[in-house]
Amino acid sequence: MGGVGRVTDRRSVLRISIEDPTAPAAGPVATAVRRPDTLAAEEPLEIRVGSLGAIRTPLAVTMRTPGDDLDLALGFLFTEGLIGAAEDVVTAQLCAGTDEPNTYNVVDVTLGPDVPPPDTDPARNFYTTSSCGVCGKASIDAVRTKSRFDVSTDAVTVDAAALAAMPGRLRTAQRTFERTGGLHAAGLFSAAGELVCVREDVGRHNAVDKVVGWALREGRLPLICHVLLVSGRASFELAQKASMAGAPVLAAVSAPSTLAVDLADEAGLTLVGFLRGATMNVYARADRVVV
Amino acid sequence: MGGVGRVTDRRSVLRISIEDPTAPAAGPVATAVRRPDTLAAEEPLEIRVGSLGAIRTPLAVTMRTPGDDLDLALGFLFTEGLIGAAEDVVTAQLCAGTDEPNTYNVVDVTLGPDVPPPDTDPARNFYTTSSCGVCGKASIDAVRTKSRFDVSTDAVTVDAAALAAMPGRLRTAQRTFERTGGLHAAGLFSAAGELVCVREDVGRHNAVDKVVGWALREGRLPLICHVLLVSGRASFELAQKASMAGAPVLAAVSAPSTLAVDLADEAGLTLVGFLRGATMNVYARADRVVV
Repeated sequence: MGGVGRVTDRRSVLRISIEDPTAPAAGPVATAVRRPDTLAAEEPLEIRVGSLGAIRTPLAVTMRTPGDDLDLALGFLFTEGLIGAAEDVVTAQLCAGTDEPNTYNVVDVTLGPDVPPPDTDPARNFYTTSSCGVCGKASIDAVRTKSRFDVSTDAVTVDAAALAAMPGRLRTAQRTFERTGGLHAAGLFSAAGELVCVREDVGRHNAVDKVVGWALREGRLPLICHVLLVSGRASFELAQKASMAGAPVLAAVSAPSTLAVDLADEAGLTLVGFLRGATMNVYARADRVVV
Repeated sequence: MGGVGRVTDRRSVLRISIEDPTAPAAGPVATAVRRPDTLAAEEPLEIRVGSLGAIRTPLAVTMRTPGDDLDLALGFLFTEGLIGAAEDVVTAQLCAGTDEPNTYNVVDVTLGPDVPPPDTDPARNFYTTSSCGVCGKASIDAVRTKSRFDVSTDAVTVDAAALAAMPGRLRTAQRTFERTGGLHAAGLFSAAGELVCVREDVGRHNAVDKVVGWALREGRLPLICHVLLVSGRASFELAQKASMAGAPVLAAVSAPSTLAVDLADEAGLTLVGFLRGATMNVYARADRVVV
């Protein structure tokens, strides 16, 4: 299970087809064929963080599709508010191992001297945990406090037709999905609809973190005047990541949650859902969408 | 944002329809209508755990759809291997609050005297973190070690036609999905195809945990001779939860990941993917599926 770039792998599968599944009593004709199938690879990635000269301690383990792992780690640290610039990281490397074979499943990040070490509270430090005050409002306030960027002032506008064309472009660029049907994608688009960066992962939050980590390395943060498109639903966590990265527009192929809409409202983020061909729903800051 | 049973909520949405999205230059006809839209509710839930007489400490925060929260907490504790029976829990209650209004977003769990307190390592204690040995193999070994049940010996068989009928039954039972398009579902079926329990959530792992927590309270664990069906993809985490709950068959409407298949192989779990009407792929222990 080792090696870099294991984006897909093959497994043997029994493919069953039933001629009439609604009539089992009548004895439907079923066929079964054994054949190889291409699957999306999933492996754990541990992110370890420490200051220069100090021991690095495990911060998080995420189940991800291998590839762009340094970007994933950097994007995770950025969207969680732990780092604010590429310069905050002295080194980031796939752990070279010592006495064991390298699984390429550990990223070691060394933080600069001015970066406070992360809080390793299991409650992931975004939430009020001292009382019964755990609620969506507190979560939203925490994101607003932590974000380095104010997306509400971004004056970009996006044509509805440009938005409508994005899912098709994302799908075309999703090379691994075609083979596996098993990967989420995140795409970064210019306001004119040009695809700037696409990443795939079994975890949709990982796909977004890989895009943000790439943008951090490329000096493209905040993502002003850009649209972040996700292939699935828009959860609170994805709205949080868009807001933290300074993207003024988050678009999703599927449904948003209430808390994603509430965060978008509070942060001034344009939130588009059910973006499917010719139709879409705009849940927040619809003024940026030109009809 | 308070109150129990906030499964959905309404938000105002701008619905945009474009007549010909492929011809933006020609000036497509677009219409925009403001209307109310029903969304899946998402709120954080903090699970606090402590021994009898001791202070309860935060163990995890999950973003979930409110409802069945005690089952969610119990199912989480069970599928993570922290408790092994309903009797391991003395009390579980939605925190009644002290000086703040109750958000109903905290579950306090008091463990019995014989239950070891959980390891609150942020790396979530399923993974080898002492070296570069973080890999899928170690994750699978950890599940095998922790699981109280051996699903490999379950002699149940399931008719392919019965499997094929399950997604339709699950969808029919998904009342909230119909209104929001934004919820994952987990359904527990008998081997004959009878739907025993269905739960919906913005997080697919939460939906499974709600089913397992319900089964724990009902004295139905291990889930021998049952099929656990999930509405999305089959990740490692879901295969882990099925294995921990003793379910011999995990079926998914969408794709499995490599690590889910590998865990199923190792644990002796039947794994069905792409279960869509008349066709399905069986990735592991196909001997249980009768064609």
